[in-house]
Amino acid sequence: MIVILKPNPNEDQLESLKSWLIGKGLQIHMSIGTSHMILGLVGDTSALDIDLISALEIVEDVKRVQEPYKNANRKFHPEDTVIPVGSTQVGGGTLTIMAGPCSVESREQIIAVAKAVKASGATMLRGGAFKPRTSPYSFQGMGAEGIELLKIAREQTGLPIVSEIMDASQLPLFADVDVIQVGARNMQNFNLLKVLGAQPKPVLIKRGLSSTYEELLMSAEYVMASGNEQVILCERGIRTFETYTRNTLDISAIPVLKHLTHLPVIVDPSHATGKYALVAPLALGAVAAGCDGLLIEVHNDPAHALSDGPQSLNPDAFDKLNRKLIALHGFLKEGEAAK
Amino acid sequence: MIVILKPNPNEDQLESLKSWLIGKGLQIHMSIGTSHMILGLVGDTSALDIDLISALEIVEDVKRVQEPYKNANRKFHPEDTVIPVGSTQVGGGTLTIMAGPCSVESREQIIAVAKAVKASGATMLRGGAFKPRTSPYSFQGMGAEGIELLKIAREQTGLPIVSEIMDASQLPLFADVDVIQVGARNMQNFNLLKVLGAQPKPVLIKRGLSSTYEELLMSAEYVMASGNEQVILCERGIRTFETYTRNTLDISAIPVLKHLTHLPVIVDPSHATGKYALVAPLALGAVAAGCDGLLIEVHNDPAHALSDGPQSLNPDAFDKLNRKLIALHGFLKEGEAAK
Amino acid sequence: MIVILKPNPNEDQLESLKSWLIGKGLQIHMSIGTSHMILGLVGDTSALDIDLISALEIVEDVKRVQEPYKNANRKFHPEDTVIPVGSTQVGGGTLTIMAGPCSVESREQIIAVAKAVKASGATMLRGGAFKPRTSPYSFQGMGAEGIELLKIAREQTGLPIVSEIMDASQLPLFADVDVIQVGARNMQNFNLLKVLGAQPKPVLIKRGLSSTYEELLMSAEYVMASGNEQVILCERGIRTFETYTRNTLDISAIPVLKHLTHLPVIVDPSHATGKYALVAPLALGAVAAGCDGLLIEVHNDPAHALSDGPQSLNPDAFDKLNRKLIALHGFLKEGEAAK
Amino acid sequence: MIVILKPNPNEDQLESLKSWLIGKGLQIHMSIGTSHMILGLVGDTSALDIDLISALEIVEDVKRVQEPYKNANRKFHPEDTVIPVGSTQVGGGTLTIMAGPCSVESREQIIAVAKAVKASGATMLRGGAFKPRTSPYSFQGMGAEGIELLKIAREQTGLPIVSEIMDASQLPLFADVDVIQVGARNMQNFNLLKVLGAQPKPVLIKRGLSSTYEELLMSAEYVMASGNEQVILCERGIRTFETYTRNTLDISAIPVLKHLTHLPVIVDPSHATGKYALVAPLALGAVAAGCDGLLIEVHNDPAHALSDGPQSLNPDAFDKLNRKLIALHGFLKEGEAAK
Repeated sequence: MIVILKPNPNEDQLESLKSWLIGKGLQIHMSIGTSHMILGLVGDTSALDIDLISALEIVEDVKRVQEPYKNANRKFHPEDTVIPVGSTQVGGGTLTIMAGPCSVESREQIIAVAKAVKASGATMLRGGAFKPRTSPYSFQGMGAEGIELLKIAREQTGLPIVSEIMDASQLPLFADVDVIQVGARNMQNFNLLKVLGAQPKPVLIKRGLSSTYEELLMSAEYVMASGNEQVILCERGIRTFETYTRNTLDISAIPVLKHLTHLPVIVDPSHATGKYALVAPLALGAVAAGCDGLLIEVHNDPAHALSDGPQSLNPDAFDKLNRKLIALHGFLKEGEAAK
Repeated sequence: MIVILKPNPNEDQLESLKSWLIGKGLQIHMSIGTSHMILGLVGDTSALDIDLISALEIVEDVKRVQEPYKNANRKFHPEDTVIPVGSTQVGGGTLTIMAGPCSVESREQIIAVAKAVKASGATMLRGGAFKPRTSPYSFQGMGAEGIELLKIAREQTGLPIVSEIMDASQLPLFADVDVIQVGARNMQNFNLLKVLGAQPKPVLIKRGLSSTYEELLMSAEYVMASGNEQVILCERGIRTFETYTRNTLDISAIPVLKHLTHLPVIVDPSHATGKYALVAPLALGAVAAGCDGLLIEVHNDPAHALSDGPQSLNPDAFDKLNRKLIALHGFLKEGEAAK
Repeated sequence: MIVILKPNPNEDQLESLKSWLIGKGLQIHMSIGTSHMILGLVGDTSALDIDLISALEIVEDVKRVQEPYKNANRKFHPEDTVIPVGSTQVGGGTLTIMAGPCSVESREQIIAVAKAVKASGATMLRGGAFKPRTSPYSFQGMGAEGIELLKIAREQTGLPIVSEIMDASQLPLFADVDVIQVGARNMQNFNLLKVLGAQPKPVLIKRGLSSTYEELLMSAEYVMASGNEQVILCERGIRTFETYTRNTLDISAIPVLKHLTHLPVIVDPSHATGKYALVAPLALGAVAAGCDGLLIEVHNDPAHALSDGPQSLNPDAFDKLNRKLIALHGFLKEGEAAK
Repeated sequence: MIVILKPNPNEDQLESLKSWLIGKGLQIHMSIGTSHMILGLVGDTSALDIDLISALEIVEDVKRVQEPYKNANRKFHPEDTVIPVGSTQVGGGTLTIMAGPCSVESREQIIAVAKAVKASGATMLRGGAFKPRTSPYSFQGMGAEGIELLKIAREQTGLPIVSEIMDASQLPLFADVDVIQVGARNMQNFNLLKVLGAQPKPVLIKRGLSSTYEELLMSAEYVMASGNEQVILCERGIRTFETYTRNTLDISAIPVLKHLTHLPVIVDPSHATGKYALVAPLALGAVAAGCDGLLIEVHNDPAHALSDGPQSLNPDAFDKLNRKLIALHGFLKEGEAAK
């Protein structure tokens, strides 16, 4: 970490800062320029609060040189993490397709969708039992019953299931869910992250609407530091000034995250845009940009979905899209192999 | 709610939409223009999912005419809500000053700060016992012990106390906290909001870093719909492209929220900017723009604060600022009275 | 256009608004709901100022039903626009690759790069002669001499040339440039757009850093309304809170713009990210998402580039990337053909 | 400037970077930490392109220590700049109130408004003759005739006039305009800035919708480096995700800019919000936060304004507001004097 001091810093404050830093076990390299003095901190700075230091009166700016995340950092773990889930895996060259309805609504619905997406080549079934809704007056999901229906659909198709947890108190219900999803609005629910780090199921973390790459990785770090290294990252659109789409899908997140971390990166084009016509081009774009998989909403009857349905594809449209995605993934892998 | 259809909508889909809407208890007024057909929905549309409808293939756009919040809506509750807290109140013309350290660190620290801010005219003591930290390696607060120390400081000064809850499981510890704060990162932790709606203490909700005014009001609605009408809103800066300040304080939020809702609106200039030199001008600006109060970090020794200290004022600087704020508030009230 | 009035509007103001609208040649359809009155405006509303109306005291909100752009609107011009440039074209199924250095620096440099990118399959040569630089102390480009060097490179390779104009006064220098580029910072330099609309060369408009899709289309409309229908749109990254990349490339812009307009859409992954390692994955992603072409910086010696060099690929890296892009484009076209 | 290298940088590339930097007249201080090597650059780095260096393969990050602006920098010019305009001044403790209609529409209108705002205590008359409009079909202003009408209004009231220039070619028409305004969309029209730097009238630069403080100061630097030191900065709202207001007024810009530069800072609450009901609270907030003045739209008949009218106050509302602003400014000055 580098601390840039303001010109002519107060000496008492400088001494106080230096002894505080030394007390944290750090070495200080001072470097004096024409207008500014710079402190280079050597040692483990991951527990240092950058905001704290940068707000000191004598400090002009602070620059972290090492990333504040360790377990998630590719520098210390160069090999891609591959996460086995049922008979499939996430990462390691597999194209993971998590498909299914936004909300589980009935036994018939979830089984029908599960069978359809399985037939089209999906590798996992996703479905929401607990739904985070902006309005207290909106449908909040089937809850525990929804989880049970997902398990029945898994039994009938063999597809592992992915579902969103909203609160640590719901954890017992997720004991037999294959991948536990943390929603964008809970990305910095640190208590929930810690609890998920202390259980054995893989955790899929969605990027918050205004979260930086580093913050997403720090949320992964919370889970990993608590003992669970099976974390999947999911880009699902960020909030920008553009309102034509619900959010702005940030496809750069794919190569950036793949560079910074060894964790698998998947993309959710359905939620990002809120417009089903954009799902196919963005899903293709995400695969070409190198993602490890996609989270795609599929509904057996979009017009009657109770929740978020309209951004869903129906099984026919999904079938057409998924065949293209698989073909594209195959084409790109061949290209890599030919090198 | 107004639904604008695409030109030449598919008739089956249109019928299906219409019968679905009628099934929701709504009346439909159709209006046919040169290029577009428009459905005006009459009735209670607060439970309708605008995203669901707008994503339908035949729909061009959907426009809500009525706000989706009811309890928080000034239209249905024109009088300002005034929330009594100990011997003071929030709203109703009082200038509430919640002052104190970001984190409670020790008995000496919190009592010293409490006495100092009381002497300068603060009306409440704020202090964090549970701290949401981006990094799992940072200090996470004193927890239950911190709450106990706040109560001791209250006993010694008479100042009501405000502290942040991070998880519903912590609620028993907050039974005797005067105002329970929900942090920006938990603004859409809907389970937590529901739990806080079912207990009797006032709730202070901080606006999320990328939350719209409507979303903030919907979070208040969650608390109110669960039975607790004592909600205080807090603007604390939003995330923008500008990185010179930590976040961008949105002072427009004050008059906008005061227009949309009857709930009191306070402002946190300390967290918004992360720079203590900006606290005074922004606090003065917020008071002049009509806020009901401020949340200001004050620390007895900023250079040694364990958490977020550097954006704090020390007691001397706070004293100087608070006298100005009280004088300004008095001057503006006189102006109103003279009208 | 739909005008939603506030409850119980002042009658005089309502009459005044209605007669003003009728004076604009519009018909008014009134629709009265339980809480709100709605005016549906029928006729040509493209010259109406939506901000003007929405700011009236009696108006709650205004919603445009028809897009404010006509010439650029796919609804009135369903066929894709194809723009012939030299012996190649932009749009119509061609993958346009505009490659070259950010700045023209010397005869040797521009000829070497032109030959290299031609050999790798680029279809046009791009190079900056006038450079918009944030700092008055930075290199501002070779100016007129740079344009001359581009023409020499064209002569030697046959590649049409693309270069940026910064001010209407420079137009005579661009008389023989094949495609005239308008930079992101000039996207709303309306005088420049009008001047470019009155000359015959195709115009490539880069999206402003915080411009919406509609604003970009309105800028195209300025050129088209002045008589020049040969407009190419370019997505080059928008400004968001994320600072790891210079800007955030918005790949959704591709399918959205292709839906809203018949104009060709190209993507500049080099400027968007400012990191050369991200150019290849984002270029591939953009092609898979359906863009008509790419603008890629290529430099013969990135380490010595005078301007924006570091985000450039060198000819070898470009060659490898361009072969992949062409193969991917071919693969996707085959897939379309097979349908 | 500090250059942080990636671990184990390629030696040839490092040598090449070092000799390039030395060739720029800089000295290099190397500092070697456990994981990273750091280059501290000593000398004048204002012409160095930070993007260029940060994009090099061996570079992890680059951090500017000195601001890239000199003439506008308070460090090198600690005293506030005071700009005389007619018989008034901008800066130096004066509260400048530039009031008037968005567009000049007729002789009667501009004279009536000028007389009204003069009577209420405004210090300058503002009015648009050339209007930057998003749509080519909207009213574009009266042009040269509008400028003439402003001069007549000045003659009749003694108020200096402020008006916006859109293109360097319009400069002769502005020879007798007291303050020349550069609009937000032209903030980075560098040719225009240079031209304005070479003429003697004060220049008011509006912050671009997505421009950082530093970029605004660099635009001021363009004018100053060309020889004109009379620059006034104007905060007018930035583009964020919040759409309830047209833009988000950034009141933090006032204390931040006053800290970074000696130039006067004014605020335009009318354009920022697009809602006339928000003008008064935000104008008061801006004065309390320390701005040097305000730009306020005033129209003699808001309901019939041809352009941006609805966000205007009428003369009565302006009169009431302006008296409050003057009283508040006086109150705050007294407070300062009493210290």
